Amino acid sequence: MRLQGPNLRMIPEGDDRERLVCGDCGFIAYENPKVIVGAVCTWEDKYLLCRRGIEPRVGYWTMPVGYMELHETTEQGALREVWEEARARAEIDALLAIYSIPEISQVHMIYRARMLSPDFAAGPESQDVVLVSWEDIPWDDLAYPNVRWSLEYERQMRGQSGFPPRGRPVEG
Amino acid sequence: MRLQGPNLRMIPEGDDRERLVCGDCGFIAYENPKVIVGAVCTWEDKYLLCRRGIEPRVGYWTMPVGYMELHETTEQGALREVWEEARARAEIDALLAIYSIPEISQVHMIYRARMLSPDFAAGPESQDVVLVSWEDIPWDDLAYPNVRWSLEYERQMRGQSGFPPRGRPVEG
Repeated sequence: MRLQGPNLRMIPEGDDRERLVCGDCGFIAYENPKVIVGAVCTWEDKYLLCRRGIEPRVGYWTMPVGYMELHETTEQGALREVWEEARARAEIDALLAIYSIPEISQVHMIYRARMLSPDFAAGPESQDVVLVSWEDIPWDDLAYPNVRWSLEYERQMRGQSGFPPRGRPVEG
Repeated sequence: MRLQGPNLRMIPEGDDRERLVCGDCGFIAYENPKVIVGAVCTWEDKYLLCRRGIEPRVGYWTMPVGYMELHETTEQGALREVWEEARARAEIDALLAIYSIPEISQVHMIYRARMLSPDFAAGPESQDVVLVSWEDIPWDDLAYPNVRWSLEYERQMRGQSGFPPRGRPVEG
């Protein structure tokens, strides 16, 4: 018999919703929303963008962003992604946006960060990393809508502080 | 042979950190930080508090709060907890605080909400629910430090809007 891992959808005893359960050993694979952390990083008036080197959306551009890992704060996770994807060091200065994306059970927390130097390089998951002015952002080749939202929020909030994080825009 | 479920700590091929893997079928139980959502709810100048009816911290007091579930926004999750634990309806008015608790890999997002009516009742996970004035909050019997932080932030921010969420305080 080939074992299949958690592959049954059932309501465990004492619970009130379906979970993913292993039919062989009873292990309950609790699925909860995942947190995505990232940062719109700038050096003077330029934006740090990464060209994705891994699926999905290979070849498209994004700010450094990725899954929050265990045993880190949201801020530490965002700065870890900045290092992993763009080999840049930055300091966080505000929480720019929180996007709940219930369709795929994610919560994105995107910070505004200032690079500590203009140094950067492509990390292992990036094909390329660039520092570009607003006009040179590859708007037609952004990986996801929230990349555009985040860049636009950064632009709107330039010079401002003490503001609440923006949410997912109501798109017309 | 009794199957044990995911019980090996190892780095899967192509990954860069240890995951929990099933030695029998190879299932990788990815563990990511969990999101906790809740709300400090008020009716006029009174606060809605629940006495916990389940472990941990049975018998201690908290605002309605719990694990965010799949396919909901953080706001929907917070208001779901308000209903499940306190059988109250409320509307969210601000994001009061975000607490990263890396020691236990949690991110708490606590909202400020106004009750739509003074109706409430103990949900299945609460021993009791009350609506109390600031002076009558059972300060010595709160379930967790973040309950106190959240109540204090609500008090500090009364009448204010457009503010960034507070973080975990630096405790002296």
